[in-house]
Amino acid sequence: MTAVTLTSVLAQALPLGAGEPVIAVDVGGTDTKAALFDTSGRMLGLSRTPTPLDGERTAFSVIARVQELTLQFAADFPAVRPRAVGLLAPGLVDDDAGIGVLSTNLHWSNVPFKQLTEDLIHLPTTFSHDVRAAGEAEFRLGAARPYRNVVVLVIGTGIAGSLFINGRAHTGGGYAGEIGHSIVHPSGPLCGCGSRGCLETVASAGAIVRRYEEVTGIRLSGAREALALARTGDPAAALIWSEALDALALSIAQLAAILAPEAIVIGGGLAQAGDQLFVPLRERVSALLSFHRRPVIVPASIGENAGLLGGALRARDLVS
Amino acid sequence: MTAVTLTSVLAQALPLGAGEPVIAVDVGGTDTKAALFDTSGRMLGLSRTPTPLDGERTAFSVIARVQELTLQFAADFPAVRPRAVGLLAPGLVDDDAGIGVLSTNLHWSNVPFKQLTEDLIHLPTTFSHDVRAAGEAEFRLGAARPYRNVVVLVIGTGIAGSLFINGRAHTGGGYAGEIGHSIVHPSGPLCGCGSRGCLETVASAGAIVRRYEEVTGIRLSGAREALALARTGDPAAALIWSEALDALALSIAQLAAILAPEAIVIGGGLAQAGDQLFVPLRERVSALLSFHRRPVIVPASIGENAGLLGGALRARDLVS
Repeated sequence: MTAVTLTSVLAQALPLGAGEPVIAVDVGGTDTKAALFDTSGRMLGLSRTPTPLDGERTAFSVIARVQELTLQFAADFPAVRPRAVGLLAPGLVDDDAGIGVLSTNLHWSNVPFKQLTEDLIHLPTTFSHDVRAAGEAEFRLGAARPYRNVVVLVIGTGIAGSLFINGRAHTGGGYAGEIGHSIVHPSGPLCGCGSRGCLETVASAGAIVRRYEEVTGIRLSGAREALALARTGDPAAALIWSEALDALALSIAQLAAILAPEAIVIGGGLAQAGDQLFVPLRERVSALLSFHRRPVIVPASIGENAGLLGGALRARDLVS
Repeated sequence: MTAVTLTSVLAQALPLGAGEPVIAVDVGGTDTKAALFDTSGRMLGLSRTPTPLDGERTAFSVIARVQELTLQFAADFPAVRPRAVGLLAPGLVDDDAGIGVLSTNLHWSNVPFKQLTEDLIHLPTTFSHDVRAAGEAEFRLGAARPYRNVVVLVIGTGIAGSLFINGRAHTGGGYAGEIGHSIVHPSGPLCGCGSRGCLETVASAGAIVRRYEEVTGIRLSGAREALALARTGDPAAALIWSEALDALALSIAQLAAILAPEAIVIGGGLAQAGDQLFVPLRERVSALLSFHRRPVIVPASIGENAGLLGGALRARDLVS
């Protein structure tokens, strides 16, 4: 009994499993997370530091940061010799080519990150989209693992998705899975992307906070506070939350008609709402569908380090 | 010059190309089309007969009809020995398993058509969805051929689609590609499928006729007449056509965000509207999108026998 329990605790603690030692670096709009993974899949030296925002030079500062991190890991964990790097970033990313196509927030376009990083640090490097890498971790190690056709949605400041079709990631040259920029209301609010009524203008954690503040003039600490207000019957919060659920349900019903996924896995900050999200969302999706294949709608299971794990998986894929 | 011209005329006449001789049978809600294809890809003995609508026994009458057609082809073209049959039907079809999952109009559910037909006629048989087979013909022989990621829409009485992702058909157990039943207006008209505001309640040729008749009380011969009225400035026809274009553009913009296809190929009766459809549709889609990958939107090229050609391709795949 004790051995079984220990093993399962260990499996939870080490979802990555055994394999080559690698480094994963997840560059966000605000912070950069990094970790070293050893041959047992243990995560070492997890760090979170501000992303170097250097205007037009940001891409190069990011690559220099990867070099610093690599040297730091070598100093701190000399016994672990990483064989590859999985570098992740937001925006439009062509995973196959290893190119950062566009990031408005990080001021780059068409930067060959994979090549430039390999030239600097002399380790095989993958360059991938942060949300797709997190989705891949869910697909290979987490809640999406039982399914071959699945959409992983990450709902936070914005909404992004990763698609797995017949067991393979579909990236569309970096343009697929942009569920947050699928239009739900053509005459809806202007989105940061330039379109109107994108899903994320109504259903992201960021939109929920912004809409509440606009309607009431009251500042919130985050979507968690808006949801707490909705629970206690605040009318503005309840209406905004209900509209977010309606929009999300509509997009999921559209995914069901178009792709017929077996499952929708939802992660990101908003998924922490738990039953307050999943129970009414399942009801709404169910009410919208008829003959369609009904996807199960479940929370992501890997948590906030899913991106790093996905980056580690992709780095290992390069060298195994 | 003459030889080149003849060759290209021949290529147009024989889009299927050389291969094993096969039979294709396309069972529609009203008519059944059938043809024999010889080793050069020539279509022989094309026939169109009423689909045997025998209530609960329709599936078995359809299979018996395949046997009759096979015997008829043997009598009429004794030199052509078909090696396989491609049988097509509407409704929910599991192409991989060869099962007719559901057809409300043809009164069947979970009929193992592939197996039953093979047992009766002793020829290898594929059983596929009619629109997906037509889409496959466009993908392998027609307008969708240059692309690896493409959605083929067939807009007629209803709207159905077939998806090709990274060069492969995605069927989702028969449930994928149901763009006609992707909801564009959650509070819109009740659809025959039981949902509300499906794309095909607004944008199909059938919906355009029905909506015009409801608004004006005037009976139309078909969508072609509604579009002619819209061109001459009839306000009801112009409004209904404009709403159809808006809905279709919205669904295509959603496909762009979700799947990022390189192309949308449109066939079926409504595609015969030509520039009256494609010019304003392209403008509307373009206005909805921002950073998204913009699909080219082009007419299908194979025409009304695309289904039969797709059935022939699938039959040939079985035996070559």
